[in-house]
Amino acid sequence: MGSAPKAVILLSGGLDSATTLAIARDRGFRVNALSFRYGQRHAVEVEAAGRVATALGAERHEIVDIDLRAFGGSALTGDVAVPKDRDDAAIATGIPVTYVPARNTIMLSFALAFAEVLDSADIFIGVNAVDYSGYPDCRPAYIEAFERMANLATRAGIEGRHLTIHAPLLRLTKGEIIRTGVSLGVDYGLTSSCYDPDEQGRPCGRCDSCRLRLKGFAEAGLADPLVYNMS
Amino acid sequence: MGSAPKAVILLSGGLDSATTLAIARDRGFRVNALSFRYGQRHAVEVEAAGRVATALGAERHEIVDIDLRAFGGSALTGDVAVPKDRDDAAIATGIPVTYVPARNTIMLSFALAFAEVLDSADIFIGVNAVDYSGYPDCRPAYIEAFERMANLATRAGIEGRHLTIHAPLLRLTKGEIIRTGVSLGVDYGLTSSCYDPDEQGRPCGRCDSCRLRLKGFAEAGLADPLVYNMS
Repeated sequence: MGSAPKAVILLSGGLDSATTLAIARDRGFRVNALSFRYGQRHAVEVEAAGRVATALGAERHEIVDIDLRAFGGSALTGDVAVPKDRDDAAIATGIPVTYVPARNTIMLSFALAFAEVLDSADIFIGVNAVDYSGYPDCRPAYIEAFERMANLATRAGIEGRHLTIHAPLLRLTKGEIIRTGVSLGVDYGLTSSCYDPDEQGRPCGRCDSCRLRLKGFAEAGLADPLVYNMS
Repeated sequence: MGSAPKAVILLSGGLDSATTLAIARDRGFRVNALSFRYGQRHAVEVEAAGRVATALGAERHEIVDIDLRAFGGSALTGDVAVPKDRDDAAIATGIPVTYVPARNTIMLSFALAFAEVLDSADIFIGVNAVDYSGYPDCRPAYIEAFERMANLATRAGIEGRHLTIHAPLLRLTKGEIIRTGVSLGVDYGLTSSCYDPDEQGRPCGRCDSCRLRLKGFAEAGLADPLVYNMS
């Protein structure tokens, strides 16, 4: 493993980023995970990220505090109620209230700094254009534009090495993501997806993220190992 | 002023960003300043940013903590000695040890979040390609690539409004920047440029940033109002 290239993986602790970490490792990278505390309600995700990083053999797992609450403006930072029981059409269209302004851009920017310090030219992010079409920063054109900017922003770009933003889940359905992860040994019982878990950290089963997750397990023909608080 | 468009200005408290704030205001924007504490030695800059924001009539001044020390890797975050007494050629060539990985990308990303919350489509940054040619993220092509990415990242982009990254100092010499600022009423006695100020906050006069500043005042034919600790 010593001479394998290093990669930085954005790891939220959710299903998608855990799968992305497993994919990066499967492609032969030494994986360095990066998580954020951003004033989100679902801080339980950061604990999940730690479990996933350990289970999947990350070399390093850094957690960076970023406080988007100073700006206000999203359910995930505490200003708006998390919507529940929305149907697939409502989830798929429009920009969700759980959208955090510039979140992927901020997280990728920190990943870029981490990659530069590690002398890594590969960053992985688990964005998905199928289930999250409402998020502007989950579209393929966005990822391509970030990569282009990143190559101009850094020493790597100046020195002629190409920095790549990998988004291996971009065009997969949730069911395909889960099947991929299972084939790579991901234990989804370690992950956390809920926008609004209860005090014991149990997922609600009713927010958009839980509904997409449960639909994904149904598509994959598999049982979700998590225990839901469906009260 | 009520119906004028809002702009976000990255304000370090240095000479360049103070001038940039004055330019944004002169162009008719309601100015919203954004500063960072990023584990830098020169925290005195953040105090200067507060003085400048007040003096130049900022509507809001937000200070965001970002901790790049988790990654390591630069003199400004404490790992390497600040170089002193380098000549112009040494300052102008190569990537300086004071380069902070992905710093402008991270700061612009937070500005993007702030702009989105403010419903602003204009971000100002005081980067300069003349005196800081060694920094990859001070080049015109970088600013253009960030703007392109930003338009794909945000609601504004989806909704067809164009988000602009303004870099009004990009092609100005330090002397031209100072003359512009003086003509717009900037009090450079409120600003702070030094990478390594003493305990009283007095600039050293010998780091790259002080040397560029002093050279700029000389070019402009003006006296720097700051008192230096030249011991």
